[in-house]
This record gives sequence, structure tokens and C-alpha cells, in this order.
Amino acid sequence: MKHNTQETLQGQEMDSTIKRAMRKPFSDSKIIERANLLRDNDLYFFFRAIEETAASTVTVKGQKQIMIGSNNYLGLTHHPLVKEAAIKAIEKYGTGCTGSRFLNGNLNIHDELDVKLAEYLGHEKAIVFSTGMQANLGALSAICGPKDLMLFDSENHASIIDASRLAIGTTFKYKHNDMSSLEELLESNVSRFNRVIIVADGVFSMTGDILRLPEIVALAKKYGAYVYVDDAHGLGVMGHQGRGTMNHFDVTKDVDFNMGTFSKSFASIGGVISGSADAIDYVRHSARSFMFSASMPPAAVATVSACIDVVTSDDSILANLWSNVEFMRKGFQELGFYTYGSQTPIIPLFVGDDMKAVKMTKYLESKGVFATPVLPPAVPKGEALIRTSYMASHDRADLTKVLEVFAEAKKVFEIPSHLH
Amino acid sequence: MKHNTQETLQGQEMDSTIKRAMRKPFSDSKIIERANLLRDNDLYFFFRAIEETAASTVTVKGQKQIMIGSNNYLGLTHHPLVKEAAIKAIEKYGTGCTGSRFLNGNLNIHDELDVKLAEYLGHEKAIVFSTGMQANLGALSAICGPKDLMLFDSENHASIIDASRLAIGTTFKYKHNDMSSLEELLESNVSRFNRVIIVADGVFSMTGDILRLPEIVALAKKYGAYVYVDDAHGLGVMGHQGRGTMNHFDVTKDVDFNMGTFSKSFASIGGVISGSADAIDYVRHSARSFMFSASMPPAAVATVSACIDVVTSDDSILANLWSNVEFMRKGFQELGFYTYGSQTPIIPLFVGDDMKAVKMTKYLESKGVFATPVLPPAVPKGEALIRTSYMASHDRADLTKVLEVFAEAKKVFEIPSHLH
Repeated sequence: MKHNTQETLQGQEMDSTIKRAMRKPFSDSKIIERANLLRDNDLYFFFRAIEETAASTVTVKGQKQIMIGSNNYLGLTHHPLVKEAAIKAIEKYGTGCTGSRFLNGNLNIHDELDVKLAEYLGHEKAIVFSTGMQANLGALSAICGPKDLMLFDSENHASIIDASRLAIGTTFKYKHNDMSSLEELLESNVSRFNRVIIVADGVFSMTGDILRLPEIVALAKKYGAYVYVDDAHGLGVMGHQGRGTMNHFDVTKDVDFNMGTFSKSFASIGGVISGSADAIDYVRHSARSFMFSASMPPAAVATVSACIDVVTSDDSILANLWSNVEFMRKGFQELGFYTYGSQTPIIPLFVGDDMKAVKMTKYLESKGVFATPVLPPAVPKGEALIRTSYMASHDRADLTKVLEVFAEAKKVFEIPSHLH
Repeated sequence: MKHNTQETLQGQEMDSTIKRAMRKPFSDSKIIERANLLRDNDLYFFFRAIEETAASTVTVKGQKQIMIGSNNYLGLTHHPLVKEAAIKAIEKYGTGCTGSRFLNGNLNIHDELDVKLAEYLGHEKAIVFSTGMQANLGALSAICGPKDLMLFDSENHASIIDASRLAIGTTFKYKHNDMSSLEELLESNVSRFNRVIIVADGVFSMTGDILRLPEIVALAKKYGAYVYVDDAHGLGVMGHQGRGTMNHFDVTKDVDFNMGTFSKSFASIGGVISGSADAIDYVRHSARSFMFSASMPPAAVATVSACIDVVTSDDSILANLWSNVEFMRKGFQELGFYTYGSQTPIIPLFVGDDMKAVKMTKYLESKGVFATPVLPPAVPKGEALIRTSYMASHDRADLTKVLEVFAEAKKVFEIPSHLH
């Protein structure tokens, strides 16, 4: 018999003949031990409370900071047309739909957004989910049946990993962006499964590198596999007018499923899956995270729709973004930071030691720069980094200041110029 | 070798020595066959496009309908104070946060809502997630470690079922609301696992019956188990000022984890987990759907906060709701419908045959009533039902009309007065 040592039972005598389960504090976990170490040393950089936000600055503890830790690549969260569209949707449709699209929470603007996204992305059909995470969870677990196989890039997003636990089928991983590792898996497995689905991020969220999509498409054709791209960080950023990684490589028709999120460039929250009419009709009748979850609120739907209007009508936004990205990548390289070969608005800066990364984050904050440390297990041990990312709405003076702060930080913390 | 019969490969000769996986249409599934049967017969009542919404009516295909198919129990989606709060949040914070609360998407209003919900619910701490589904997925898979056991009511919501697939630990099901079935499982399993967590809906979403929570709490004390309540349909409805099922039974301090959603009474989308400071701190550092998903948009946060203000300051709303519920339950019983012993705003009406349920839904629509059919596999075969639900904002004339329409429908479709 296990004794209950943590709690006193109130209003009930303990009967010593009854077997009992354990009730032990949750704070006894390694995760909380580690959080407490950071908290005790005033180095806890999670859950920072943002008091005010603007196009590319935030206020934390009363101090204005240049935001280089967001996913707000186009800077549209404060765009006047976007805000206005969201407000009008609340005035017309109220604040929520209180039901799933499947049963009672489907507005005409949901249907219209599906159509608009399909046209924008260049696929036959599209369907919006309430979060990007739920789009991956629902679509992948619907597509990958018991005799099917998913092949994952080893750096895929957490929501894809979780989808493989929901899916009844099998999952194998190949080495990050390594096409011979992928081909080996294809060659030895295609005849053992029904459908085979290659699943990978279009732009990898931590290192900012781009999927070798043309090679993926060629391998998929060779082996009869499907291609599923999670373009969370590519949508709005890559390709013509932000149509994403598949557009950037001109392989839209060869991507069977394209997933995008609205919590990055599109200034909201939600997700989309696009593809053939046949496949999307199947997803909308079988993805559990779609059928058993409430629909996107009207304001979020209108926000995404307005973001598409803005990015397809005002080319200066993407021009600013890429000009800022170029400026920062060159700047960091000149300062001698290791930037992981990033080609996108995400520019990771190698630091190495965990504690150094959080101390550096504190230093940056003290100089008015909001960036985020990425620690193991999100990266390998000894490879802590500072993730930075750039926006169309950053102004050059702010970015110059950021580079100056990092130049000092590099000396103070003796940041190496190479990985290891 | 499997032949690719569905597609012609473009720009590439097929090499007959290469093994290939199958590419077959997704429309070959049973799910789509069934959807097509309904579509072909003009009986497809999914994804109805709502063109306009008001306090308790909707417009579909240009026709105004009384909405008795929502989860908008308090009718707050169009409440002026709620809409105003949402709009002000957009003006101040923009349309989205573009990051997780953990890293860069945490506003002061997220933290304030956590505190407000904890106080409202009567728990030490609370934490908001971006959807209710993600609250269940993340919290349960974090709490239930490899040597832990979850005991599920057999009618738990889909998001709880999915959480058991994400969790590394074990899950067993007990018979719906059957305490001896639960006790049997407790007795034979508590010594085989570390933590044991009893997980059940507070108000069951399809049948509207209430969890036998006081008995669950007593069994949990007896066997050292934890109690986790999914109060999606109880929050805002049950207990003093809508504090939920645990408040209704006065067992708040004995519920270890209470989950609520904002896509029902609270006019938005999102979820909350509340409990002890120790447990919630653990959840916010380990729930993957929390850490790896963007935070609730500012408008949604403000909506929920305003809903709490409204329901705690205006008692007439809950009074109206329960008066409407009483009126409808009595009405349906007098008409001879079988209502599954419902005691909540959800009043299911037994129909039996699948096709009869969808035909009746069509009939209701033609008479200006929006209700939703619930078909197998959501209910057992031969037990199709019409799910109806009531709102504080329904007016009595509309509800009287609803009863008249159902009185006719009962005759037209020969609806039985008993289950089987």
C-alpha cells in the first residue's frame, strides 16, 4: 500500500485496508526545478507581460523595447485596414460563433475565406481551422490511416510531432533537409504501406532555413508519395505576394497539402489546409480538431481576409521586409555571429551555453531589445541560441540600434563566431 | 509493384523498376460516401452558412431562423459591453499576438484574465489556452505521465479522447455516470499506477445530463485519485453566477483540475485550466499545446473578461436562461418528446432513425427553426436525436413558436415518446 504523505484527508477517516494511489506535488518535476533555477536568479524570460504593443515595439515593465522576437513578419497586427476589418466583423457578427463550423458556427465569411485562401495559394480548395496547431493535428491524423506512413523532417514543428501521436498510422523521421536520408526511407518503405506522406516545414521555425521542396517533390513523384508542407513561417513571407514556399519554388501544383497559420504574418490566430477538392472535402469531414472545436471568431476571419488584401495590393510591405532582413543578416554576419545559413526573416544567433543565452537575453532587455532565448530541449545541448526575427514595419534606425546592442553583447558574453 | 492508376506523372518517365506507394482518391472513404448520400438528397445539414447573427436568431439563405442549435447559452456574443470590450482591445493591442504566451505573445491582459478566472472559479491559479480543445489536449497529456492512469466517463468529449492518445500514460473507460463501474476500476488499478486521474465532463454535451460530481469526489478521496472536470458546457451556466458544476455542488476545493471553454457561454474561443498553484505552474511549463501555439488574440481575451463582468453583475441573465430552460423542458415533455432526463440548457430530443433526423432538421429549417441533428457514430446506431439548446436571450414568443413547430413535426415524423 502506498501512503498518502502529501495531504491530510478532510472529513473522512482513512481506511487502512483501502489501497490508494499516489498524490505527490507536481513541483517535484525536472521542468519545475529548472524553471525555479531561472526564477531564483532573475533570469526567467518566459511569460514576459507585454503592456503595450505597436507596429514593431512593445512595452514591458514600463520600458519600450524594439521587438525582434515575434512572428509578426508583415507587421500587420496594427495595420489600420486590418484593425478596421476586425472591428467591423465584431459589430456585424458579434464576438464569437459558439460552435464548430460543422454544426452551427459556420458564417458566410468562413466560407468566403476558404475560397479566398484557395485562390491566393493556388490550390483547388482550402479550409480554415481555429488554430494552426489544430490544422496539423486534425489534417495529418485524418490523412494518415492505419496502413499509411508519414515521413517527417527531424526538425518539424511540435504540432506535427503531436499529430503523429494522434494518427493511427506509422511515422519515421529523416535527417533534417537531407534528401538521401529521405530517399532511403522511401525506397525501403513504399511497398510496405498504402499511402506515404512526406511532411515537412516550409521554413523551419528555429533556424530559419528553407525546405528543399523541389527535391522533395521530385522524390514524391518518383515513389508515389504525397507532399504535405507546414508553411507556418512561409505564408505571407515567401513567394509572390507571400503565397508561400511552394510558390517561391513554383511547385504549387505538386504539393498535395499546404498548411498555413494566421498567427504569424496574418496578424491573428488560426490555420488553413489547402489541396485538391477531393482531399479537402475528406479533411473537412474527418479531421476531429476541425469537427469538434469552435470556429474562428468573426474578428479573426476578417483579420486574415484583410491581410490578404493588404499583401496583394501593397508591394511595399514585402519589399520592406526583405530589405530589413537583408540588412540584418549582413549586419550580424559582419559582427561575426553564426546565423545558421538563414535565408528568411528568422535569423538565429548561435550562443552555446544555456545560462549565457538567458543572461544575454537579460542584457538585451536592459538595452531595450526584446529577443527570445531558445534552450535545450528545443535545440541540442550546448547549442542554445537567441532567435531573432524581422518585420516589414521595423524602421532602419531601430534596426541599427539592435546591431549596436548585439555588437556590445558579443564582446560582453564572448559569443563564438562558429557552431562549436 | 503497385501501379499509379490515378494520376499521370508529368515531366517524368515512370521507371517500372521503382517500387511506388499508392495514390488513391480520398473520396473512396465511407465518410465521403455518406456525406454524398446526404448531399444528393438535399439533406446535408453541415456547414450551413450563417449570413447574419443576432442575440438568438440567425439568417440562412436569406431566411431568418430562431437559433436553438448553439452553445451561446448566455447570449453574450452580441451584448453591447462585450462587443465594446473586444473592439477596445483591438484598438489598443492590435488584432493578434503572433506568438505563444511562453515566449513572445503574452500580454498583461492574458495574465489579468488568468487571475480573474482563478478568483471567479474559486481555485488558486488558472491559465488560459487558445482553444478549449487545446486546453484538454495539453493539460491531460502533461498531467498523465508514463506510470499514471486516467479513468474516463464513456461519454467524454472528443478532445478528451484525443488527449488520451497524446498522453503517454494509460486510459480506461467507465460506464457513463456509473459510480460502481468507476469504483471497480479504481479498486483494481490504484496500486498498479502512480497518479490516478478521474476525468469527466461536468455537463455532457449531447445529452445535457450533469456529472455525479459529489460521488466522484468521494471516490477520489477514498482512493487517492485526482479529479479533472471538463466543464465546457457548465461554465457560465451552472452554479452561483455561472461558476460551473463544481460550484453548483459546492465541491470546488475537491476538484484538482477544472477545465472551461470560452466558445460556449463566454462568447469567444479559448479554454482555461484552474487548480492549485503547484499544478497550474506545472501545466504552464509542460503542456505542449500551450507552449507551442499562439496566444489568444486581444479581442478574445477582452471578450471573456467582459463576459465575467456581465454575468457577475447582472443576475437577470442567468435568471432568464433558467426560466427559458424550464419552459422548454416542460413544453417538450408535455408534447411527449423523450428528453433524456436533461437538467441543463441542452435538451436533446430522441428521434431514432438517421434519415428521419435529417429530414426533420430540414422541416424545422423550413419553419424557421435552426437545430442540429446528431447522428451515429456520435450516438449509438438507431438513436439519432435532434440537439436543442436554450439561451438567456431567447424571447418567449420565439420559444412558443419553436414548441408549436415541434408539435407539428412530432406528428409528421411520428416521433416516439420513449427511447426505443
